[in-house]
Amino acid sequence: MASAKTNKARPATAQWLRSSNDISQQFLAFGGRADVVSLAGGLPAAELYPVADVEAAARSAIARHGSTIMEYGPVEGLPALRQLIAARVAAETGGNFTAANVLLTTGSMQALDLIGKVLVDPGELIVAQAPTYLGALDAWRPRAPSYLPLDWTLQDPGFDAALEKAKFVYSVPNYSNPTGVLVSQERRVALLDKVLAAGTWLVEDDPYLSIQLDGSPGPSILSHSVARSTSPGPYDGPVIYLGTVSKSLVPGLRVGWVVAEAGMIQNLALTKMASDLSGSLLTQAIALELMERDFDHEHSSAIVPVYRERRDALLREAALRLSDWFEWEVPVGGMFVWMRSKDSAIDTDALYKFAVEEKVAYVPSSVFDFTGENRFAMRVNFTRSSPEVIAEGVRRLARAVEHYRSARQQLEGAA
Amino acid sequence: MASAKTNKARPATAQWLRSSNDISQQFLAFGGRADVVSLAGGLPAAELYPVADVEAAARSAIARHGSTIMEYGPVEGLPALRQLIAARVAAETGGNFTAANVLLTTGSMQALDLIGKVLVDPGELIVAQAPTYLGALDAWRPRAPSYLPLDWTLQDPGFDAALEKAKFVYSVPNYSNPTGVLVSQERRVALLDKVLAAGTWLVEDDPYLSIQLDGSPGPSILSHSVARSTSPGPYDGPVIYLGTVSKSLVPGLRVGWVVAEAGMIQNLALTKMASDLSGSLLTQAIALELMERDFDHEHSSAIVPVYRERRDALLREAALRLSDWFEWEVPVGGMFVWMRSKDSAIDTDALYKFAVEEKVAYVPSSVFDFTGENRFAMRVNFTRSSPEVIAEGVRRLARAVEHYRSARQQLEGAA
Repeated sequence: MASAKTNKARPATAQWLRSSNDISQQFLAFGGRADVVSLAGGLPAAELYPVADVEAAARSAIARHGSTIMEYGPVEGLPALRQLIAARVAAETGGNFTAANVLLTTGSMQALDLIGKVLVDPGELIVAQAPTYLGALDAWRPRAPSYLPLDWTLQDPGFDAALEKAKFVYSVPNYSNPTGVLVSQERRVALLDKVLAAGTWLVEDDPYLSIQLDGSPGPSILSHSVARSTSPGPYDGPVIYLGTVSKSLVPGLRVGWVVAEAGMIQNLALTKMASDLSGSLLTQAIALELMERDFDHEHSSAIVPVYRERRDALLREAALRLSDWFEWEVPVGGMFVWMRSKDSAIDTDALYKFAVEEKVAYVPSSVFDFTGENRFAMRVNFTRSSPEVIAEGVRRLARAVEHYRSARQQLEGAA
Repeated sequence: MASAKTNKARPATAQWLRSSNDISQQFLAFGGRADVVSLAGGLPAAELYPVADVEAAARSAIARHGSTIMEYGPVEGLPALRQLIAARVAAETGGNFTAANVLLTTGSMQALDLIGKVLVDPGELIVAQAPTYLGALDAWRPRAPSYLPLDWTLQDPGFDAALEKAKFVYSVPNYSNPTGVLVSQERRVALLDKVLAAGTWLVEDDPYLSIQLDGSPGPSILSHSVARSTSPGPYDGPVIYLGTVSKSLVPGLRVGWVVAEAGMIQNLALTKMASDLSGSLLTQAIALELMERDFDHEHSSAIVPVYRERRDALLREAALRLSDWFEWEVPVGGMFVWMRSKDSAIDTDALYKFAVEEKVAYVPSSVFDFTGENRFAMRVNFTRSSPEVIAEGVRRLARAVEHYRSARQQLEGAA
């Protein structure tokens, strides 16, 4: 009797979770197998992590701050790091930024979660660059938003009206995830103008800034927003800018930041307090030690040539083996090549099964798509593995494509 | 023209945030002033933080794990720490727990946020021990739940039916926040029985376990749940247990954990991935170094006598100066004394203004109350300051009460 009661079904999970999937975890699990070549993740090269520098920074951070960084933090984060970030942004943009414009987060991912909580009620509209970073879609799923794709050409006549209804626009102008595209300065300015006219927010997610493979990307939308302002006072523009040390130092510190007008920072901070009380001042103080001596820039300069070589190895092998079926642009920064099936001949969801058999992982386009329509591209990473392993991965991908095509021809023959 | 457009009002925040308040931040800001005696926070004694041990643990953690802990983590957290926690819980409860039953979180606070996201849709019911930890109410506000108070006497005839509708029960049986109450073993078992009969979840939040001032609190509800189970297999009971190192080591590591049946852990992990991708493996590895050698227990043994002395100093001074107006029980653990106004003669929201003038901070009962009705008690902390400072804080409180009473008498005389 007690046992029967024990087995009574417990309450169901919330609606959003029932419609969710664990695709990220699946990719991480499969991609982490030793015999698999993973071109799936968005991970830095682990062998380049500056372990000794982090260790030295941990020692000096604890010597410098002592028990202060053993505490719950101010929810906004370590004041000195917020000041450093504000000073950098002020120097880069010419704007008036102080610590009041900066919130430290658990990577940029937490910033996305907080933005969704602060701004979105169920059914409300997000205009998002499409295809869209999977993590952003995941972060906002509990808020049950609706979506409209951001067309960077800004030619759609209905777009301005839609923008008036949007809670915010989501964009990754530098080497976007998943497409690797660098958005032109003209398009940045044109979008900003429309955002200002519509009176909405503009999230500029910039995790890949430090991975500049072929020259500088030029000013951020935040910079343009500063230039647009007629007020000399504190920044009060619509851009909510997201940065991180995950690519320029190490992801394991889990240090990211939001730069925005002070009222938005207050709302995000209040929401962060309700999410985890505060981040770790210890890891923030380690980031401070390294960023104070510009080690993040120095380290980025060291890893960029390595990533460039890996990108080139990927593209060379792909030109040989995948160009009959896929096409792509050469990414000038970031971590990804976006391979589109020519004439939509290959369904990359269906292909995945064959890739698993060949022990190679990529990310199919469907997971980046809030419309669920795009099943004809794949995101291929080039930062995680050596040129040799990447080339082997491409060869496995090519075999997977051939098996996929044979299997489909057999099916069509049978039909 | 451009300027006018720039100043167009941007979209409003989400509904829940409009009804929210920044009371926690206000308390932290006021309580952090050098001239204020803060009896408001729930903070450990900063001078007792084991800074040198954390520093040594950071060094050995990096030497041991190297680049592994520079990575994004597995979202569930550092495997070795999850195993250690599972082994401890198995030893304490006699149950069958593995790493699959453990999720590491950014303090227990993130666990509360994740539980709300996993289980609650707008309007759904939470049965919560009342008064309720402010952080829990904050964490669940974005999910817009409804509440019913948990009456530990379990005498309300309508309670069983309510429990059937509840998504979960929230309880802090050990030295509750804010009341400091230790819930008896009989009541724990009786509640568990009702939860099993109703088929709901039971959140057992246990941050104060390490602060045992007068003897052991006895078995957790999780232990009773193990004893109730008829299955020798992995734990499949309804208890979602929350632990943390914030009180037994330092809060700044931001390491907490959830122990629950594996399916719930998977849902929480999926939700954590959508919240911050992963916690910091570095701070988790530091906690592992310290917990492997039972330093958390050792450290707790060292700080408990200090906290006991502070509690006694508070109670001694309060007996002298506050007992005409307030009554309280002696807490046998935790961090707080819950002082209730005799005959509800003192509104602690109204008193607060006078306390600010006397430069002493406490937390009024209204913030712990989802009904908004209880304005006649206050939470007084005894862990953060020296006995002398605490006694001075009580004297200031007593002066604040006298000024409050005079002001009210003047008002009544004028009316």
